[in-house]
Amino acid sequence: MTESFKKTVLGLQDNTEVLQRIGDRLADRFAGIFAAETVERYVFESYTALARTAKISTYLPSTTEHFATDRLNALAKSKGAVESEVPEVLFVCVQNSGRSQLAAALLNVEAKGRIRVRSAGSLPAGALDPNVIEAMAEMGLNLSNIYPKPLTDDVVRASDVVITMGCGDSCPIYPGKRYEDWNLTDPSGQPLETVRIIRDEIHHRVRKLYAELTASSPCSP
Amino acid sequence: MTESFKKTVLGLQDNTEVLQRIGDRLADRFAGIFAAETVERYVFESYTALARTAKISTYLPSTTEHFATDRLNALAKSKGAVESEVPEVLFVCVQNSGRSQLAAALLNVEAKGRIRVRSAGSLPAGALDPNVIEAMAEMGLNLSNIYPKPLTDDVVRASDVVITMGCGDSCPIYPGKRYEDWNLTDPSGQPLETVRIIRDEIHHRVRKLYAELTASSPCSP
Repeated sequence: MTESFKKTVLGLQDNTEVLQRIGDRLADRFAGIFAAETVERYVFESYTALARTAKISTYLPSTTEHFATDRLNALAKSKGAVESEVPEVLFVCVQNSGRSQLAAALLNVEAKGRIRVRSAGSLPAGALDPNVIEAMAEMGLNLSNIYPKPLTDDVVRASDVVITMGCGDSCPIYPGKRYEDWNLTDPSGQPLETVRIIRDEIHHRVRKLYAELTASSPCSP
Repeated sequence: MTESFKKTVLGLQDNTEVLQRIGDRLADRFAGIFAAETVERYVFESYTALARTAKISTYLPSTTEHFATDRLNALAKSKGAVESEVPEVLFVCVQNSGRSQLAAALLNVEAKGRIRVRSAGSLPAGALDPNVIEAMAEMGLNLSNIYPKPLTDDVVRASDVVITMGCGDSCPIYPGKRYEDWNLTDPSGQPLETVRIIRDEIHHRVRKLYAELTASSPCSP
């Protein structure tokens, strides 16, 4: 390698060390389930996947740890390496900044831990839609720590139910899952009054879904 | 699991078996370098990453095999598991449908195998821009088998030079690489005459880059 290759960039952040530490922590946590090589790849690829679209890079290492942990949990479940006591539901929209985040937050409220809920997007936005945050705040829900995530194979595999919203055929199909497509207006860029209507429509559908899943689930009390 | 979870979707494609076969082939090819678990994850996550944005899903299994193979080659190189005789250059733009594809195609023409060239996007488009395909066809280059790909950690790690074009801070920073940002007009949606001007500007920069890389490279003849 010549000197020209070795030119280091000033003013840009090298997160390698902090990501390596996250990798070490998660390798310990998933020891016996995944090879350290797999865990390290998950951490670095999760980081790059989030960095591609994240608007604010300050929290990237901590969202990376959160995202990679969730993906590894999903993969462990789909491999049968860990037991899941509750059904797992995935909401997928385009930007993971409105519809799928609203649905996930509202199902979490309904289910109170009796369903594991995830969301993702086919083309994630840089941040949540401000009016979506506002419409949820009106219901006492804080979405400020929530971030848009790209759809990954692992979370689809782990899911029993996959609800798509306007993201076309972007979601992998596995047998034995329940797939549904919800036709909803995209709240992105809409005024707050419209976002409230969408929120309430999603709430209605989420309640119905929750009732269906718990009515026949062996996990219901 | 209840019956409602077992509802299988009709009319949607389950590519699990074909992806599994791709995984088996690549696990053989990378035996001794990567665990079969890592290779399988690469294949399925590469598929999902491409499916998120691909406009035409017909060729997805074959583009998945191509993308996963290239990513595993990049990772093998960055781990020192395989030797690279030539410098590796990565072009990153937003959609990987115009600027970075033009740059990659033109550098490939200049370098004739003496540089390994890749491209990627922070928010990949569904397909290449038609006028970009046309502007390259005028130079005798066929881009019809080229597809937009999301930026991944592995290809950044493998690269000696990373050229970004309008994609902000979306690219991970590693020490010891040469990073450059090229300020270019985005050809997306531009008329053919404008795309030709952008193509020629990129060609000029690519020639200069090639001259720099080969002037001092121990790999030059």
